[in-house]
Amino acid sequence: MGIDIETFVACSLGKWRSQRSAHHLAFAHFEEIRSMIEIEGLAKDDPAVLALCESQGVEPERIATPFKMSWEGETDWDEDDVLKGETILVPVPSQDSENSGKLLRDQGYAETIPAAGDYTITPDGTFILTTGYDRAAAEEKIWFASDNLRFRVSLIKTSDGKGVTTSSLSSEVRIVPKDK
Amino acid sequence: MGIDIETFVACSLGKWRSQRSAHHLAFAHFEEIRSMIEIEGLAKDDPAVLALCESQGVEPERIATPFKMSWEGETDWDEDDVLKGETILVPVPSQDSENSGKLLRDQGYAETIPAAGDYTITPDGTFILTTGYDRAAAEEKIWFASDNLRFRVSLIKTSDGKGVTTSSLSSEVRIVPKDK
Repeated sequence: MGIDIETFVACSLGKWRSQRSAHHLAFAHFEEIRSMIEIEGLAKDDPAVLALCESQGVEPERIATPFKMSWEGETDWDEDDVLKGETILVPVPSQDSENSGKLLRDQGYAETIPAAGDYTITPDGTFILTTGYDRAAAEEKIWFASDNLRFRVSLIKTSDGKGVTTSSLSSEVRIVPKDK
Repeated sequence: MGIDIETFVACSLGKWRSQRSAHHLAFAHFEEIRSMIEIEGLAKDDPAVLALCESQGVEPERIATPFKMSWEGETDWDEDDVLKGETILVPVPSQDSENSGKLLRDQGYAETIPAAGDYTITPDGTFILTTGYDRAAAEEKIWFASDNLRFRVSLIKTSDGKGVTTSSLSSEVRIVPKDK
């Protein structure tokens, strides 16, 4: 069978130590990013959630568990650069499929305006998210190897979706189990 | 639909520049590997192919396109270490499925004895290979983003398949198209 978005979000809650490698393909550069990621559930009637729904024209009764993701880390690309941010994410399951829908976020990775991506969860439990931005498109695959270990492969594509500029792998180890 | 193993092998032929990042999870170490990989088709009656079939008890008339993979590269883990090797791979499609079967190889990545893995090709064209070794298990996912760009995610697992010791992402760009 597969899992639904509520289950996927529930499995993702907690604090994760992330080790990420990015490949900048045009010049074969390696980038190393170390970060801590925290994923927290939010109430469906949280004011920030309701505001995001309104900005994207989505009726709040259609949403599944919203959550907040915050991160803080560093990259070897620019030693002085501290990566830090947070974003609110709101899944909106499709009305005709249990395993796909829209994912609203109040800030994209690649741009700073609200964005909506399309997600689908494959029968083997891989969450696939594609998001189009003005000048780029992103494709992310996230899956669990075990309860406290998940992987995320991201591709940053040119806006026509044909070229890939950056690929990356994140290995994420949960350090605070969600039920503690 | 999906693609069959013959198509997957045909798409893989040629010379690839590989940029690979490995995450050694227990101590959060990053490893960078740069290599050149060459994939060449072999005749089904190549003596080395027939010998591998015999050693694994496989009738040669059941096999699909065999191929040879050779690589040469370097890792930043040990600056003096030159990675170099080659292996012969022989797909044996399952008799009851178009998209799965065994993949014989005369040398594994993790050990130096002949090995046989199980492959399946998902409807979205991802080739998934799982191989059990004496003291480890490997899971590889390979897919094409475009004709000349493919990605490979590998997990090295403990032999019970529950823990992951190493994850890696390879971004592979073809530098000599197969039809040149």
